[in-house]
Parts: sequence; C-alpha cells; structure tokens
Amino acid sequence: MKLSQRALNIQASPIRKLMPHAQNTKNRGIKVYHLNIGQPDIPTPSEMIKVYHEFSEKVLAYGPSQGLEVYQQGLIHYYGKLGISLSAQDIIVTTAGSEAITFAMMVVANEGDEIIVPEPFYTNYNGFATMASIQLKAITTYAENGFALPADTEFEALITPKTKAIMLCNPGNPTGAVYSKEDIFRVANICKKHGIFMISDEVYREFIYDGLTHTSVLQIPEFSEYAILVDSVSKRYSACGARIGCIVSKNNEIMAATLKFAQARLCPPTIDQLAANACVYLPDEYFHEMVTEYQSRRDLVYDELVSIPGVICKKPQGAFYIIAKLPIANAEDFVIWMLDNYQMNGETVMAAPAEGFYASSGLGKDELRLAYILNKEDLGKAMNIFREGLAQYIKTH
Amino acid sequence: MKLSQRALNIQASPIRKLMPHAQNTKNRGIKVYHLNIGQPDIPTPSEMIKVYHEFSEKVLAYGPSQGLEVYQQGLIHYYGKLGISLSAQDIIVTTAGSEAITFAMMVVANEGDEIIVPEPFYTNYNGFATMASIQLKAITTYAENGFALPADTEFEALITPKTKAIMLCNPGNPTGAVYSKEDIFRVANICKKHGIFMISDEVYREFIYDGLTHTSVLQIPEFSEYAILVDSVSKRYSACGARIGCIVSKNNEIMAATLKFAQARLCPPTIDQLAANACVYLPDEYFHEMVTEYQSRRDLVYDELVSIPGVICKKPQGAFYIIAKLPIANAEDFVIWMLDNYQMNGETVMAAPAEGFYASSGLGKDELRLAYILNKEDLGKAMNIFREGLAQYIKTH
Repeated sequence: MKLSQRALNIQASPIRKLMPHAQNTKNRGIKVYHLNIGQPDIPTPSEMIKVYHEFSEKVLAYGPSQGLEVYQQGLIHYYGKLGISLSAQDIIVTTAGSEAITFAMMVVANEGDEIIVPEPFYTNYNGFATMASIQLKAITTYAENGFALPADTEFEALITPKTKAIMLCNPGNPTGAVYSKEDIFRVANICKKHGIFMISDEVYREFIYDGLTHTSVLQIPEFSEYAILVDSVSKRYSACGARIGCIVSKNNEIMAATLKFAQARLCPPTIDQLAANACVYLPDEYFHEMVTEYQSRRDLVYDELVSIPGVICKKPQGAFYIIAKLPIANAEDFVIWMLDNYQMNGETVMAAPAEGFYASSGLGKDELRLAYILNKEDLGKAMNIFREGLAQYIKTH
Repeated sequence: MKLSQRALNIQASPIRKLMPHAQNTKNRGIKVYHLNIGQPDIPTPSEMIKVYHEFSEKVLAYGPSQGLEVYQQGLIHYYGKLGISLSAQDIIVTTAGSEAITFAMMVVANEGDEIIVPEPFYTNYNGFATMASIQLKAITTYAENGFALPADTEFEALITPKTKAIMLCNPGNPTGAVYSKEDIFRVANICKKHGIFMISDEVYREFIYDGLTHTSVLQIPEFSEYAILVDSVSKRYSACGARIGCIVSKNNEIMAATLKFAQARLCPPTIDQLAANACVYLPDEYFHEMVTEYQSRRDLVYDELVSIPGVICKKPQGAFYIIAKLPIANAEDFVIWMLDNYQMNGETVMAAPAEGFYASSGLGKDELRLAYILNKEDLGKAMNIFREGLAQYIKTH
C-alpha cells in the first residue's frame, strides 16, 4: 500500500515546513519575528471587517461557481481603474490566488506538459505543478542584476512541443523585481510567436516603489488572447485569511474551461467574497499610504542587509520580499539554528530558506527570503538580531 | 494554441450547467423551485453567524495549513462523540469537502491510476478525477434495489495494478443509500486484501432516516491504516457558503503527504473555520430536529414520485436526494423544457439530470436527481408542478 509518486514528490513548503521549530522556540518563551511568511501586519480595512459584522442572510448559501455577481461587478470596477475593461464573463472568482494558479496550469497543460518560469519563483508553484503533474522549466535569474528577465533566446531555448505557457510573477515573489512594459511585451511576443499562453501572477500589483509603474498583461490588448491573469486580495488588502482570488482572461475558451473546473468545487467562500467586495471601493489613498509604508520598510531591511559583510542583494522594486545571498553554505541550517540555538534578549528571527524557490537543484542553498511585513520598530529589532545571529553562526560553523 | 485535454474533457456540472436556463426563466418573471442543488433552506445556526459578527482581530491573517488549532480541537470533540478518537495530527482542515476529495485522490493515485467508485456517484468526483488525471472505474448500482452495494466479486473484477482505492459516499449522494456496518466491513476487507485505500465521503453522516445508524469507516479500528475520511460542514450545518471541510486519517504517511498539498495552498478560510467551530458544540437536539424535518420531506417527495405512473424510485434512507427513473428518453431535455417551456401559475421546477452522476456512458439518461431541500409547503407545490409538467412533456414529446 503505497502513496502516489506525487505525494512523495511534492515539496514541503519552505515557508512553512520549519514552523514546528518556531513553535518549539515560542514554547521556550522566546519571541520569534516572522520574516518567513508574507503575512502583512497592516490592519485589514475596517470596511471589509464590517461586512462580516453585518452579514444578515438566514442561510450561508453556495454562491455561483464563477463568483458572486456583485463581486464580479466590483472587480470590473477595480480593473477598470487600471484601464482594463472587462465583462463578468472574463472573471472567475477563486479560492485565493492558489486556486487561480492551479486552474490556470490545468487549463493550459496536460500531465507531462511544461510551463516556463523564471526562477527563483513563488515556491508554491512547485506544489501546484506537482498536483497537476506538469513540469516547471526554470530559467534562472540572478540577485546580482536584480533578477532581470533573461534574453529571448534563453526563453526560446527552453520551448519544446510540450511547452504550454510562460508564467511570470510581476512584481516578483521572492525577487521583488518589477518588469517593465518592454519586458512584458517581449515575453508576450515570445508567447504569441510560439502559440503558447502567458500566465501573469500580479497579486503584488500595487506594491511598486521608487515611482515605477506596473504593467499588467491585460493592459496590452494585442496579446489578450494569450493572457491569463491570476490575482488575489490577500496582500493588497491585508486579508490573507479571506482566501479570495480570481482568474481573468479575455480568451473565451480559457474562461469556459475554467468555469468547468470551478463548477467541480462549487464556489469560493461566500461571506469572504462580500467582504473582498468592500475593498474594491477603497479610495486610492489607501494604497498610497500602504506603499509609502512598505517602501520605507524595504529601505530599512535593504540598508541593514547590505551593511552586513558578505551579504549580496539588490534593492527590490516591488512586492515585500528580498532575497539575500549569505556568506554561508546552508541557509536552511542557519534558519533552524536561529530558532533552535540563538536568541538575543529572549528574541530571535525566522526567515525562509530560498532553495525551495528554485527548480534547478543546487541553486539558492546560500540564500534566504525575508518578508518585510512588520512595522519598522520590530523590523529594526529583527534585523539587529539577524545581523548578530549571522555573525555568531559564521563564527561557530 | 490549444487548451489542455483535461480542460476539454472535464465535464460541465450537471447540477450547475443548466443554471443559465434557470436565470432566463427567472428573468421572464417565473419562479423556479430549485431541486437541482443540495442547498438546504434550514437556517444556518445563529451560533455560527455570531462568530462572523464578533470577529475582532485587527488583521484577517493566514491560519496554519492544517487548520486552526482551535478548530482541530473542535473536530476532535465532534468525532469523539461518534466514538472516533483522534489527535490533531489526524486532521487537516480543507476548503470544503471538494478540496478534501481532491487531496485524497492525489495522495493515493498518480496520473493514469484508478479509483473504484459505485455509480451513480457525486458527479463532481468526475471533475476532481479529471483534474488529478486519474480514472474512475464505476461499478454500477441500481435504483430497483435501492442502490445496494454489489458483491465482492464485482469489486474485485475491477481491481488492477493501477487501482489505488475504493471510494464510497455514505450516505450516498445522489442515491440516498446508507451502507450497513457489514457493507463497510466488506469493502474495507477488500481494500485490505488488495492493499489499497478506502476513501469514505461522509458529508451526509447525520442525514439518516428510519432509525438506521451510520457507520463511519473510522469506527473500525482494524482498518484505520487504510481509511481516509473526507468530510464537510456544508450540509450538516446548512453552511455551504463557508467552504469548510476536512480530511481525516490515522495513517501518518497519508497525513504527512496531505499536509504538503495543504501547505501549497497555504490555508483554508480563517473566519469560516472559526464559525464552523461554533457548530461543533451544538447540542444533539440540533440534528434530531433537522433529521425529523428531512425525513418528512423525503416521505413527501417519495410518495409523490411513486404515485406518478411510470416513475421508478426506491425510498432513500439517507442524505437528501432521490434518484427517479422517468418514463422518458432524455431527462436533461425534460429539465430544459421545464425551464424554457413550462410553467404553472408562474412557477416551475428545476432538477438535475442524472446522467452526469454515472461514469458508464449511456446510463442515467432517463433519470433525475431531486434534492428535497425546501420546506414542505414549497416541496408540495414543486412536486405538483413536476407531476403536471412531466405529464405534459410526455404528451408533447
């Protein structure tokens, strides 16, 4: 009696698998600053919480498989402000971005097919690919040049008859890279030339710093037949626990097929959709304040990291992660050591080992992903602990 | 640029695909009694709704991938009352029963592997199997004998080296069949003999009529290594929109692998778990009242159906569905006709064509599934419309 090969193969989340160490650390009375997971500390908008407080239906019923109509209309409003004109049939509400990614992969790729994705990439793409029995073909990008997208020839060298899509995360988790309009055009053109889809994960759309602008794949009408957008409210409204995302495409065949996948699981959570809908109508000021706050957090973490001898990183331009290459052999070992063996005045720091964000084996072993999702006072303390812990780890290993 | 084969193959939900017809009917001002979908009209417990109203965290955050600890403890209490002794590591909270089924399939079966399931079965098993690229091997059961489980030899004739599990739904959707303790033992013994898993979908556990008792696969300790339970709060607490389920097994390898799948999608909805947790502590009286109500609804629908000339059905013993074989060639055609062309005093009825609940092609074409999820006054009206509509359909086709 054996489990399936995919059950054996699927990776344990590098973001979450070390949580038992953190729990033990806390059980010993030590405070852990969690920089390992993208759980923002920004309060969830009160407009959203109010929806939970005011739910007044007698029966908490199923919604439509494609999402509640009121929320589809809300999303039309949200994307409309970005210059993306949609109708309800272009949108299917999903249970978080996770489900949107899974649906996108399954709709374009069969078991054994391939999707090209620049690495390091959001580690859970690995899990979704294992579930869908598809292969991720990684194209490596590098901290040293800010994880810039490789040349067309590098993408095209990976394209085979089994290649069904190129998938980008923009802004990038874990890289913080923001792709320019030219980048998006370039990749979309490769997709068009080879007749494959472009899956764009834009859940960090608003988290853009230094006055840069974000380009959505849906802002380029000439590629709309090729474009599949996956999105989520988790980060932008600090509502990770709501589990509301969506998949958006102007390609009717894609949407008709996605709807069948959506029907199988009946619907996304009902009240959470209503709550997410309240966020759609927040004033732009909401994002301005949030981005200002995150940019200053980024500056703090980046300045601290580059001041540590031997640490290599580039200043991220978006999202709220930074990849740091450390002057040690095994970053996971260091994370465990920080939890199990280190403390400063009863406090320590947890980061995510970056190896799991790469598909190419051997890469990322000496890298960490840090999420700058704490207020600056806590972040400052955490980075101080990180610096001293790293120094001591190097001394003792 | 083509979609994946599974995107083309996945079935449109027979429960939901005709919804556009229903919408058009409503747009014409005609009331539709929905007997097509298992959406109970019983009010969601106020204890549950209260949790939404009182949510007071500042940040709607991720929970653990395995579910909130407080809710795992609640489930330990719930299953404990059924004589099933669990620890937290035996339980992973899922986004509804749908995700639990998907995880169970993927953990035991690779692409191309097979799972045996008595048909007619919950139609969305088809969708989940297509997503997971596995084959459902159907073993046909019949309305004429109450959808009794076939003999061991019939199960064993289907077992090949690719067979990874037998999956039962008990009580059955759409059959209403309740398997006896002997039935469960018998199937579990087949699984043990052949070294395959037994996946038991028990989301209708409390919906048992005529004084029968339900046997959970987890109530049989000697098979616990083989047993995987999938469950959901949707029906038992009239909370379909909460999307909270769970997967339960005493097999540590199964749970360790399932946790990795769960980590990939991060977590189930947070507030909905807290809300579901309130239901766990409802007094037993809650279920007594509910079951009494559903049993009388069943009696009403069954008595109406058997009084219609040419209709064949057996009295279901559990769940809240009934399969009726009609004296017509194409039940889907009849459902569409009832929506598009029939009305009685501005009202009509929608049922689910049963063909999609079968894997064997050609079966179920003349059958419908009716969900008796309305109050008896509405059910009485709906059955009257159904009877008259069917008579007129037969006259005109």
